[in-house]
Amino acid sequence: MNTLIKTVEVLGIIAFALTGISAARKKGMDIVGVYSVAMITAFGGGSLRDLILNRHPLFWIEHYEYAVLLLVMCLLASGVIAGQFKNSKMIMVVLVLDALGLGFFSASGASVADRLGCAAFVSALLGVTTAVFGGVMRDIICNEVPYVFQRTELYATCSFIGAWCYLAVARGAGNEILAVTACIVVTFTLRMFAIRYKIRLPI
Amino acid sequence: MNTLIKTVEVLGIIAFALTGISAARKKGMDIVGVYSVAMITAFGGGSLRDLILNRHPLFWIEHYEYAVLLLVMCLLASGVIAGQFKNSKMIMVVLVLDALGLGFFSASGASVADRLGCAAFVSALLGVTTAVFGGVMRDIICNEVPYVFQRTELYATCSFIGAWCYLAVARGAGNEILAVTACIVVTFTLRMFAIRYKIRLPI
Amino acid sequence: MNTLIKTVEVLGIIAFALTGISAARKKGMDIVGVYSVAMITAFGGGSLRDLILNRHPLFWIEHYEYAVLLLVMCLLASGVIAGQFKNSKMIMVVLVLDALGLGFFSASGASVADRLGCAAFVSALLGVTTAVFGGVMRDIICNEVPYVFQRTELYATCSFIGAWCYLAVARGAGNEILAVTACIVVTFTLRMFAIRYKIRLPI
Repeated sequence: MNTLIKTVEVLGIIAFALTGISAARKKGMDIVGVYSVAMITAFGGGSLRDLILNRHPLFWIEHYEYAVLLLVMCLLASGVIAGQFKNSKMIMVVLVLDALGLGFFSASGASVADRLGCAAFVSALLGVTTAVFGGVMRDIICNEVPYVFQRTELYATCSFIGAWCYLAVARGAGNEILAVTACIVVTFTLRMFAIRYKIRLPI
Repeated sequence: MNTLIKTVEVLGIIAFALTGISAARKKGMDIVGVYSVAMITAFGGGSLRDLILNRHPLFWIEHYEYAVLLLVMCLLASGVIAGQFKNSKMIMVVLVLDALGLGFFSASGASVADRLGCAAFVSALLGVTTAVFGGVMRDIICNEVPYVFQRTELYATCSFIGAWCYLAVARGAGNEILAVTACIVVTFTLRMFAIRYKIRLPI
Repeated sequence: MNTLIKTVEVLGIIAFALTGISAARKKGMDIVGVYSVAMITAFGGGSLRDLILNRHPLFWIEHYEYAVLLLVMCLLASGVIAGQFKNSKMIMVVLVLDALGLGFFSASGASVADRLGCAAFVSALLGVTTAVFGGVMRDIICNEVPYVFQRTELYATCSFIGAWCYLAVARGAGNEILAVTACIVVTFTLRMFAIRYKIRLPI
């Protein structure tokens, strides 16, 4: 189960980075811009959470292999897979992986805040922050109003509900792995439904 | 007097949040966007100050009731008071409360920096940072050039002068409550004059 | 040699601030905006590095004289030298000083990260972060897609190569001053070549 969760994390990082690469390429950036936006999209949310909660060292500072992995991805994305970003199958794959990442990072943010003794509501907010603020920074750099704040298919809402599931299971059953799994399943399922049926918030 | 200052703080937070709500609604955001922008406008400046000065935990992490209060406000703002944001009386009320908040947060920022031993000029700058950077982040997220940096009615300038008043009274008379009051009164009065007589900086 | 490096640092800060002043004036900001953007351009990269690596106090908090120096510069820039920002000689002087600053801050970022035990690749990334993120924040505030991410003359690339030179010399020869000098010389020379011959990244 632990290996499965680790796999979800890596897939999530890759998906977040891919959305960054895609956004940066649409703005005509060169590899420096593409790599920077990919890094910020993938690690921005987690870094913001760690700065807010005073946790050091940051994830990507300690595990440099992720920064290298993303550089390789960006180089590939400017070469062999460059033509794939408008391919509808590729778009669907990224959407699915992104939903997995959304679930994983919601759990990761809520878990860190919860263990530091934050109130449940704040822990849920930090779950959402971890999951969505990389994308917010990506959109700010690309000079767009952040996607996640616009009236579009549920995104942060799935993360918020998922984070509460994490907290309920972690506090209720005391089982971390079960809680993370519950959060990923709920977030992912909600997000897929929201995309499929174009569900938006009424207000 | 202490209760009065606490009241000013809460009114200031509410006013800052209202300017965030108003800006987010103008961009057509849903409740997720409205709430995020409200939170960032209200707590962004103070959080930035605390990150810069390495003070933990952040205010809104410790006092989760503010995050809940703002959520309730945002839900109300999307319902009962939604039509009021273009009401000129409402605009005037927000301007007045915002000026109170400007005064309070200028004092709060200068006070924290001063007690940590910063130079007076740096403490005054951090007073301004605390008071205005929530609004700067709000405008960046809404994809606008920050209001406070534009050639318009004095805003950061009132905060800067107010912060110096705080420092003068706090260091001169050694009375914290008197210093905060002086800062709020000076900042508020200057800001009201600037709005009433359309006073701008000459350069 | 130490004095020479200190001089390069101050020239770099001045150049970074000048690019901020110039960008803010183009957006029609008043002195509050001009000063804020100048400060953020000059100290944003270093502050971000220090927040990421948990180093306190921040440079400009401890050395308040730089904040005062930049205020004087901004006041001058709105008066006597205001007409000079479109002067092609002035533009060339700023480009040259900016390239010196790019070199110095690349070395400074890589050096701090290296001494804290970061992996070489992460240290190089933090060299680039220190050197270019002030400019990124400047462009975000001015509501532009960051210059450094666009397909234009090499900028971050020079910083990246310079940072690796720093690391090679610092780890190889163990001589800090030699390493900083190597980084500045390499970064500066590459940047000047890139401007002169309009060298861009192929991808």
